[in-house]
Amino acid sequence: MSTPTDQDQTSTTNLTSSTSGDLPHSNEHICLIGLGAIGISFLALHLTYTSAHVSVYDPRPDLEEHIQSVLPLYLPAPSASSSVSIAGLISSKRLVIHSSLQSAVQAATIIQEQGPENLSFKQSTWSQIISHASPTAHLWSSTSGIPASQQLAHLPTDHPARGRLLIVHPFNPPHIMPLLELVPSPSTSLSELTFAQSYFSALSSGHRPIPIHKESAGFVANRLSFILFREACHLVNQGVASVEEIDEIVRASLGPRWAVGGPFKMYGFGGGKRGMEGFLDNIGEAIDGVWKDAGTITMDLGRDDPEGWQRKVIDQTDRAYGVLGPEEIKQRDKGLRAVVQVQQDLTGKDGEHREL
Amino acid sequence: MSTPTDQDQTSTTNLTSSTSGDLPHSNEHICLIGLGAIGISFLALHLTYTSAHVSVYDPRPDLEEHIQSVLPLYLPAPSASSSVSIAGLISSKRLVIHSSLQSAVQAATIIQEQGPENLSFKQSTWSQIISHASPTAHLWSSTSGIPASQQLAHLPTDHPARGRLLIVHPFNPPHIMPLLELVPSPSTSLSELTFAQSYFSALSSGHRPIPIHKESAGFVANRLSFILFREACHLVNQGVASVEEIDEIVRASLGPRWAVGGPFKMYGFGGGKRGMEGFLDNIGEAIDGVWKDAGTITMDLGRDDPEGWQRKVIDQTDRAYGVLGPEEIKQRDKGLRAVVQVQQDLTGKDGEHREL
Repeated sequence: MSTPTDQDQTSTTNLTSSTSGDLPHSNEHICLIGLGAIGISFLALHLTYTSAHVSVYDPRPDLEEHIQSVLPLYLPAPSASSSVSIAGLISSKRLVIHSSLQSAVQAATIIQEQGPENLSFKQSTWSQIISHASPTAHLWSSTSGIPASQQLAHLPTDHPARGRLLIVHPFNPPHIMPLLELVPSPSTSLSELTFAQSYFSALSSGHRPIPIHKESAGFVANRLSFILFREACHLVNQGVASVEEIDEIVRASLGPRWAVGGPFKMYGFGGGKRGMEGFLDNIGEAIDGVWKDAGTITMDLGRDDPEGWQRKVIDQTDRAYGVLGPEEIKQRDKGLRAVVQVQQDLTGKDGEHREL
Repeated sequence: MSTPTDQDQTSTTNLTSSTSGDLPHSNEHICLIGLGAIGISFLALHLTYTSAHVSVYDPRPDLEEHIQSVLPLYLPAPSASSSVSIAGLISSKRLVIHSSLQSAVQAATIIQEQGPENLSFKQSTWSQIISHASPTAHLWSSTSGIPASQQLAHLPTDHPARGRLLIVHPFNPPHIMPLLELVPSPSTSLSELTFAQSYFSALSSGHRPIPIHKESAGFVANRLSFILFREACHLVNQGVASVEEIDEIVRASLGPRWAVGGPFKMYGFGGGKRGMEGFLDNIGEAIDGVWKDAGTITMDLGRDDPEGWQRKVIDQTDRAYGVLGPEEIKQRDKGLRAVVQVQQDLTGKDGEHREL
């Protein structure tokens, strides 16, 4: 058992004890590689909802100060005001900050990387990890776009690490957003999928790991989001509505709808007793009309063209919102927590939604 | 003042009084043409949040029974259990059910149609309405897709009714969902836009009327929704994820996110201090990759092809959810109200979201 200091005894008893009986995964030792916004958020998630040992590594020279200053924003409210709690985590060895990747991964049972979104970085990082880590460690990548098969494409086709790498793609910010897309490569073992599912399902946070059946660019959530974003940019470019108007339209309609039920279920309501078939009968033609009229903008034109859609979208977004700083992030996270709480109140923490 | 019966005195004092000082629009007389799901929901909205007189017309022979049985589901909880309240609304003449369009529109200051989504129906209905209504009546259509300019295309270009017709497109169910897209035709008077904005902004319900600058297929919200739906159907068709998995993915990610902030604002967070420009720098290439890989399914193939995407989507939706009946609608509406309440708690009822 750790010995918290007087100051953090109340707020961080759970966090500083790596052998707490209340929280799962006391036998796991998770190593986070890369402590940007996603890494810090995952760190908060593991510290708050598990009793696993946590090691971290990031090449930035001010890593400890960075964690001291940013992590409290992501931890539950009682300890958020106390920077001492981080010191407590460190002094109790619940959280160990490493100065080399080699030492960070050595004792880990789970290694989770969230480094730059760059294929050569991923490949060289995995090579280093594999040469120093346990041959049974679970390998997770938080990438938002680079499939597991590409991340290990430089290794021999029969390399055993190929069976252990799984994409565990969160939705920002991971310590609040329930989604974890689990995307195996064709080589990933089924047992890796099962392990990651049970790891996240065991948390009392209501996180919802969802296996994806095939690798694809952007997986599912980002893919759907990018496609909607394209049309939103097209409508701004056409002068149909402004950035701020489109944001407000989405908040007043699609956001609440899809927070309650996904697109298929909610459209199923539109077909009455005939469900989705009735819905397609009723408005399939109107849908098809929109599909055939959809915008087809690309990034090819570049941002410097003053007449281009990117300039309009950037300028309108800047004018509408300015710089989104820590206060806006707090407000955003308060909102996200409240909506996720509504979902949990309605359906139970496991995301079961048949009753909705 | 009306004289409610003993039974509904408590629950419907507001509803049965058309001269209540607490609710706005006591000088308006609104006529609803078409009492399907959208019409009944709008009826509930006007009855609950305004003190306007309300007339209704629909050619169905059982109109009064239909209203008696369905409207209580849409009214606030205290009166939902009492069918007497509807009788009270009728006996007090707060609500008048007409057996002809001619008599329904005669005294109206606002005429709102939500009939079938069919151009020739819209045109012939407007011709009838115009010949019997006051020449100063505000004309609103709840169509989800037929622009105002088309609805009056059969009238002379200088017909004064062209200046009075405005699309007032709600998001289902209108009595809960805050969005009202106000879409003028090029002929619609600015004063009509201003009137509809002030009508809905005055309600204590938190409804958010948003003017759209140009007519387009599907306006904005449905357009964005249909485009995302296309990609979702494509992913089901490709076997990347099932209907139920995609619904859960959206509920666990995009729904909560967009309930808190629209796509531009939320992506602005992704760029840190450089906002949208930083975001496009960071992941513009990944976005472009998804855009170029997007599905391009259409409705052309038809639903009978057992290998077609429509069959897969219909069958999986049926298997996942079965028939969505009144109990599921209640649960859905409970969820929607709760999420909208979160938005109001965070930002105030007018939808102002700069603080988020």
